[in-house]
Amino acid sequence: MNVAVLLSGGLDSTTALHWAHKHHKVVCALSFQYGSNHATHELACARRQAEQLGIPYHEIDIRSISAHLQSALLSGADAIPSADYAEENLKQTVVPFRNGIFLAIAAGIAESNDAEGIVIAAHNGDHALYPDCREDFMEAMASAISLGTFANIQILRPFINYDKGQITALGHELGVDFTHTYSCYCGRAAHCGSCATCRERKDAFAAAHIPDPTQYER
Amino acid sequence: MNVAVLLSGGLDSTTALHWAHKHHKVVCALSFQYGSNHATHELACARRQAEQLGIPYHEIDIRSISAHLQSALLSGADAIPSADYAEENLKQTVVPFRNGIFLAIAAGIAESNDAEGIVIAAHNGDHALYPDCREDFMEAMASAISLGTFANIQILRPFINYDKGQITALGHELGVDFTHTYSCYCGRAAHCGSCATCRERKDAFAAAHIPDPTQYER
Repeated sequence: MNVAVLLSGGLDSTTALHWAHKHHKVVCALSFQYGSNHATHELACARRQAEQLGIPYHEIDIRSISAHLQSALLSGADAIPSADYAEENLKQTVVPFRNGIFLAIAAGIAESNDAEGIVIAAHNGDHALYPDCREDFMEAMASAISLGTFANIQILRPFINYDKGQITALGHELGVDFTHTYSCYCGRAAHCGSCATCRERKDAFAAAHIPDPTQYER
Repeated sequence: MNVAVLLSGGLDSTTALHWAHKHHKVVCALSFQYGSNHATHELACARRQAEQLGIPYHEIDIRSISAHLQSALLSGADAIPSADYAEENLKQTVVPFRNGIFLAIAAGIAESNDAEGIVIAAHNGDHALYPDCREDFMEAMASAISLGTFANIQILRPFINYDKGQITALGHELGVDFTHTYSCYCGRAAHCGSCATCRERKDAFAAAHIPDPTQYER
């Protein structure tokens, strides 16, 4: 199947890109510059991963949209809550309907590139706190995209029953170079090691029993 | 209910704005600059209509997205098929998943502005040819937006059982100044009078038994 892949440059979506490259024909990888604090390093990783596989890479600048969205992720690194997973802290980092916006744009671009599928690295460890990461949202959005496109484009969620450790293990099998993936919400060159996403990254390598190649500040 | 209104500057969405202003609290009107041939005049009308009602108006530039979309609407006026409603001609003007993209972005902005609803002027005369205008798409997208937002945002479709003539009649009752609405796909200052959307506009005024204030080239 011809597919477009949503690629952030993190562990999960980079593994999804390699999975799609093995099992499908990837017509393009799509990244979004939405003004997040961590965009510079994350998008550089995304571009490098796509180019190394010879996959056309499009970075779409949607900062004109995010100028109208409220989120700590868009407000400078000082706004990022550190150290724990408390719901109120994480909730500040929600970008309203982000996955819905990404998937809708991907659907239009996929239709324009004769793709029949969009690959997203949604997984069972995605925080239930984020409504647009939950499976019931994904199913409804998949239905909307199938009904709203001529090609009845599908959303492929190969990792929907995987946790982050299992994804990391699969990425290792697929030969992903995790050195060139980026997860930290703080956005400095080295991963901070203490924000919620850095902690999840550490846990994923530990769960997969794979050496963690990441350079952490602590 | 607090609502955001999708406003193109045409007959239908301008009437929807006035309807929403009467029945709800409109937190913002949203227009999209997506590089269509007719954007200049259409968006000037949209802005004028919102400002006259004292409603905050946001014009969102998404040309970075439409650079990756295929459509005659985005390819210069010469690409617009004229004169008839033949399916193959109209199909060229489809912008892939346009309503899906607009609604997804509106959902994020609505959530950021404490709105519980999005108003869209979908109506029963929308061409069945456009998959993202059909009611089954709208229902699925409404479900995705409700599930994917904290406020369970609804899509309001007040005109879903109206045809374009009935919308025009309602707009007349609501006091809409139709002089400052724009429909022509060709994008010159005066309406061409012969493209498919100009013909629909003429038919709508005729069906509503309202004098058509539009200046047509022919």
